[in-house]
Amino acid sequence: MDKPKGKFTVKEYPVPEPGPGTLLLKVEMCGICGTDVHYWLGDEPILRFPFPVLFGHEVVGRAVSIGEGVNTDILGNPVKIGDRIILVPLVTCGKCYYCTIAREPVKCLNAKAYGHIQDGKPYFTGGYSDYLYVFIPNTVFLKTDLPAEVAIFTEPLSIAVNAVERVRVNPGETVVIQGSGPIGLMTLICAMEAGATKTIVVGGPKERLKLAEELGADRTINIYDVKDSRKRVEIVRKETPGGFGADVVFECAGVPEAVPEGIDYLRFFGRYCEAGNFANTGTVEINPCTHICAKCAIIVGAWSSLPDHCVKALRILETGKYPIEKLISHKLPLERLEEAFRALSTNYEIDGKEATKVVVTPQ
Amino acid sequence: MDKPKGKFTVKEYPVPEPGPGTLLLKVEMCGICGTDVHYWLGDEPILRFPFPVLFGHEVVGRAVSIGEGVNTDILGNPVKIGDRIILVPLVTCGKCYYCTIAREPVKCLNAKAYGHIQDGKPYFTGGYSDYLYVFIPNTVFLKTDLPAEVAIFTEPLSIAVNAVERVRVNPGETVVIQGSGPIGLMTLICAMEAGATKTIVVGGPKERLKLAEELGADRTINIYDVKDSRKRVEIVRKETPGGFGADVVFECAGVPEAVPEGIDYLRFFGRYCEAGNFANTGTVEINPCTHICAKCAIIVGAWSSLPDHCVKALRILETGKYPIEKLISHKLPLERLEEAFRALSTNYEIDGKEATKVVVTPQ
Amino acid sequence: MDKPKGKFTVKEYPVPEPGPGTLLLKVEMCGICGTDVHYWLGDEPILRFPFPVLFGHEVVGRAVSIGEGVNTDILGNPVKIGDRIILVPLVTCGKCYYCTIAREPVKCLNAKAYGHIQDGKPYFTGGYSDYLYVFIPNTVFLKTDLPAEVAIFTEPLSIAVNAVERVRVNPGETVVIQGSGPIGLMTLICAMEAGATKTIVVGGPKERLKLAEELGADRTINIYDVKDSRKRVEIVRKETPGGFGADVVFECAGVPEAVPEGIDYLRFFGRYCEAGNFANTGTVEINPCTHICAKCAIIVGAWSSLPDHCVKALRILETGKYPIEKLISHKLPLERLEEAFRALSTNYEIDGKEATKVVVTPQ
Amino acid sequence: MDKPKGKFTVKEYPVPEPGPGTLLLKVEMCGICGTDVHYWLGDEPILRFPFPVLFGHEVVGRAVSIGEGVNTDILGNPVKIGDRIILVPLVTCGKCYYCTIAREPVKCLNAKAYGHIQDGKPYFTGGYSDYLYVFIPNTVFLKTDLPAEVAIFTEPLSIAVNAVERVRVNPGETVVIQGSGPIGLMTLICAMEAGATKTIVVGGPKERLKLAEELGADRTINIYDVKDSRKRVEIVRKETPGGFGADVVFECAGVPEAVPEGIDYLRFFGRYCEAGNFANTGTVEINPCTHICAKCAIIVGAWSSLPDHCVKALRILETGKYPIEKLISHKLPLERLEEAFRALSTNYEIDGKEATKVVVTPQ
Repeated sequence: MDKPKGKFTVKEYPVPEPGPGTLLLKVEMCGICGTDVHYWLGDEPILRFPFPVLFGHEVVGRAVSIGEGVNTDILGNPVKIGDRIILVPLVTCGKCYYCTIAREPVKCLNAKAYGHIQDGKPYFTGGYSDYLYVFIPNTVFLKTDLPAEVAIFTEPLSIAVNAVERVRVNPGETVVIQGSGPIGLMTLICAMEAGATKTIVVGGPKERLKLAEELGADRTINIYDVKDSRKRVEIVRKETPGGFGADVVFECAGVPEAVPEGIDYLRFFGRYCEAGNFANTGTVEINPCTHICAKCAIIVGAWSSLPDHCVKALRILETGKYPIEKLISHKLPLERLEEAFRALSTNYEIDGKEATKVVVTPQ
Repeated sequence: MDKPKGKFTVKEYPVPEPGPGTLLLKVEMCGICGTDVHYWLGDEPILRFPFPVLFGHEVVGRAVSIGEGVNTDILGNPVKIGDRIILVPLVTCGKCYYCTIAREPVKCLNAKAYGHIQDGKPYFTGGYSDYLYVFIPNTVFLKTDLPAEVAIFTEPLSIAVNAVERVRVNPGETVVIQGSGPIGLMTLICAMEAGATKTIVVGGPKERLKLAEELGADRTINIYDVKDSRKRVEIVRKETPGGFGADVVFECAGVPEAVPEGIDYLRFFGRYCEAGNFANTGTVEINPCTHICAKCAIIVGAWSSLPDHCVKALRILETGKYPIEKLISHKLPLERLEEAFRALSTNYEIDGKEATKVVVTPQ
Repeated sequence: MDKPKGKFTVKEYPVPEPGPGTLLLKVEMCGICGTDVHYWLGDEPILRFPFPVLFGHEVVGRAVSIGEGVNTDILGNPVKIGDRIILVPLVTCGKCYYCTIAREPVKCLNAKAYGHIQDGKPYFTGGYSDYLYVFIPNTVFLKTDLPAEVAIFTEPLSIAVNAVERVRVNPGETVVIQGSGPIGLMTLICAMEAGATKTIVVGGPKERLKLAEELGADRTINIYDVKDSRKRVEIVRKETPGGFGADVVFECAGVPEAVPEGIDYLRFFGRYCEAGNFANTGTVEINPCTHICAKCAIIVGAWSSLPDHCVKALRILETGKYPIEKLISHKLPLERLEEAFRALSTNYEIDGKEATKVVVTPQ
Repeated sequence: MDKPKGKFTVKEYPVPEPGPGTLLLKVEMCGICGTDVHYWLGDEPILRFPFPVLFGHEVVGRAVSIGEGVNTDILGNPVKIGDRIILVPLVTCGKCYYCTIAREPVKCLNAKAYGHIQDGKPYFTGGYSDYLYVFIPNTVFLKTDLPAEVAIFTEPLSIAVNAVERVRVNPGETVVIQGSGPIGLMTLICAMEAGATKTIVVGGPKERLKLAEELGADRTINIYDVKDSRKRVEIVRKETPGGFGADVVFECAGVPEAVPEGIDYLRFFGRYCEAGNFANTGTVEINPCTHICAKCAIIVGAWSSLPDHCVKALRILETGKYPIEKLISHKLPLERLEEAFRALSTNYEIDGKEATKVVVTPQ
């Protein structure tokens, strides 16, 4: 992809021979992430990488050749040719201010991320490709025996693991999720996993809310049916113990207006996690008194994820508790990638069917 | 009960008419707690209430008469005659050093607890009785529609809710529980609820471990089969990611020797919750270097519980996810109470069957 | 005071004889709090108590008579006639949802606060009076030997103790305080006490910034001199290690516009405490992406305080490290109270001198 | 040094020319750490590095030549020849399980630490040398203008910063420190910096307690005078608010017996930090009930430190509040190193004077 809203061009390069410490994957599946669509649209990006770029960071593949010194994954599981591998796309430097002093490497000043590297060498840097070359020193990857259709959710679910850890959910709490897209549904899973005994998803359209219910949501509110935000606040509060409000709310809709509405769902001393507006979609009015100070609210931003969140996400997937593969609405060949991006930036419809999670299967 | 190891005597009193702010319950079921047995045995108690005493603090009953001003439970649910009520036995003063300054009311200097009040007035102060008189101002109680066989576990489960909150369990973590008695099994439930994706129960005998597996434990280790504690440490560590050790370990065995063994299960920076030795059962040798300092361990004591833990416990029971009623091994009439205490302080066998949770059903 | 912006009327009542558990104070000094001024102005109050009311909750007095059963303060210090007493004005019920389930009694549903009780019986309910009758059961008070001019700051400083605890300041961190009024200066003290090694106060006018420097601020920025908020952001960031931004920022200006500016001072993963907009002063535009999500910010509301914060505030005052009595700009007799309120709601000038902290000395 | 309790041999090597990303320091001063003495004595080490070894990890030096690409320290301060540099001795790999998954790099599986590298190449790997070659990629160092006598405490103080962060100290709390050696005194400073309003140091001999008082301790207890540990518990508790016990206790004595005594100082829900037994000095009996469970204690191990703790330590030193240079009892030339080690492992006396902190000044 050479420019915003531009065409996707297929290029051919010789497959590299893995050097020491590297790994070559045959890509089985690569998910399309909302970030990629924002990027392609030229929305003000948070990560300001230039074009051209080879996208694709939600990658599952098979190890086809393994460089010297690569014996196990980070948890000590032996890795051999043919094993299914999940890539942790973000690679941090371990020596900058954010890695060593702030100890929050998600903001590493020298971070590299597969799927967001633009220089094209060694070429196989993103997942929308037949092969992916795991070449950056310190890349973390995980071996798994899960089916690719499940394993592909490791990275998206890790975003939710980070969000839930940042704001904390305790067993027995009432949790609301604003948004029923992939991040919203991942967060739903993770909130239930953390012990939320009542979960409410506010979103739409109804196909997505049905998915939320299949995953385990106790209650859904369709924003296309209940259009007045004050009415939604009223409904949510009625569902909470004593009507006092929710313990935790997650913003996963990516819409600025969701923020004041979501804080209004909370009880005093409730916690709010802003996880959806990872790209700049504008401003919204809030009231510092009623939304923060007198509310005694805790509002936490959650952005991206780290290898530990991926490990935890993988463990959640391994429980087999959630029929997560149902979220994949479309499996498309590489050739239909541009079509998918156009659909995901307009009407969310491919082949006459609502797109939830779209994955690309290169071969 | 008039003295340690003494006889249980049935006494009859007139049923009180509830005054303003009070409530009279017809006891449906009352669980026997290990604390009661320790107390009856004359073990050095943590709570030094004198004899005589009417025991029984795990109480479920029906509201048979309601005093003026009692309209709802703490969550605003209307309470009327015939409703099933769960008692929160501990009542704190709200004004002492621990209530207002340390803000840890579980150590309230003026705490009163149903089942541990010895003065005999207004008589119906414990659950081993036909009626219980909810007379202490500020008593918290909860209305529920759950069957008594499930609701009875609210208070025991609240102990585990407190323990898990104190030490925190995150989704995706590996958790070991030492002990397969009621507290161990409650903690297992609560750790799973908090997102533990791998749970290991170390205990015995095998009937209890089978119960643990039915509740959802991934792995059990029978201490009667694996008698060498070093061997158990080895087995546990092999079950953890990379062999580094568990993220969290709960001591629910009530045996001092469990402590150093349990800390050895942990990875560096792991967390250990001491929840089992709530009564004084002696000392044990630990190594401040390898068990705490160089281990970078976090070791947390958890003791008793508060109303908020009971609310969260009730919500977990309401999910219906756990076949918790299977833990009730015996339902006995009031008359067999002394027999039950004798069994629970010796061989744990009643009517030729291993006793897990024994409950008394007064009528 | 009988209505918003109304007159202050002096009324005379017989001095009560303290009943069991109560205490009568001769008021030595009572501070005027910004909340009182908001209240008097008829601003949308957070606490919706009706008029008429006897204000004054920052009270220091001498015990002149002591009811039966009052022997010590909450820390066990003996209390006898003539002792100097600091009142903790907020009294919570210990049994509502917020006291027992949410465990955040600052939002007690049945809270009573001296200085905000309107029914006029037993009359001596606020500090703008010769006497104050400590009559609400569970009232917490503290004995002290500090001069009244220092002790009077216990309650205002407790607000800052709460704020600093809510957001946490670690030794070695860089902290910015927005606002140089009493709350800002209290927060400055408390942030230094918590280990902030660099403190920056953004406020004005210059007399107040000079006070900030006398208390220990490392740097001040006068908003009357640097009027462009982008410029202020630039200056603050230059003062932080590596220019990455502050670790913690406190909003103590009570101006909605301070919020987005203050968040811009922060580094990624920085913490923001909204402590100033305790009364409703309107809305402001924020960007959920750049201010919360991609910023990975933690934003915490802090409102009012509890007895434990007062104890800690008193201990900080007892260190004698801060020349806090310099903050008292005016000591006025009761008769000049209305004049003081008018000044504090307009030009902050009394007797031709900038008003920082104004106190009333009844006798 | 070639073997435990062996001789120190001076060897000469050519001074290296710094390659890209490296730095050569002329050592101004290097502190002797208790760990080094344990190591030299052949005590069971936590870090099992073999001999021979060049010790010395508390290093301050001047940059004498600077490799390509080294322009600033981690905080962006320009570094040029002649600048005073503080070394952060521990260098972590950024890619192992503890660095990326547990996110506790202090337990990095591939950690390297200056002063603990035994292979002898590139030779200048420890601080007991004229030069130190900063050659490990990712080494963090800090520029400072503080005198060497103050800057030398950065690393020791960072140990205390870590300890205080691990267990947290809030403004207004009562803190006890067990031990008046360098770690105890550093922890005293750091606890005061974190807002402890009452600090009690339990240790000896009296010269060290005098130092503690000069640094700001409110109370000291000499263990040579008060030999009965129950008596010391009694004295400490009397000094705490209400006699309930201390909020936080730090074990910095490195004696196993200190642990149960120290926990007895605590109030219910108090916090205990085990920071002194970093080397294995044996076991001690504790009571899981009274010391942990019924105590509701939080017991935390703190071990070593990371670059962020060094940055915070440096900022505390820069405040100039603590006359820390008084802790240096002896400045010795390299030639007297062995003599110093012998003294520090026996009677703590050099040149007829009690040794507190001994530093070596190579030139």
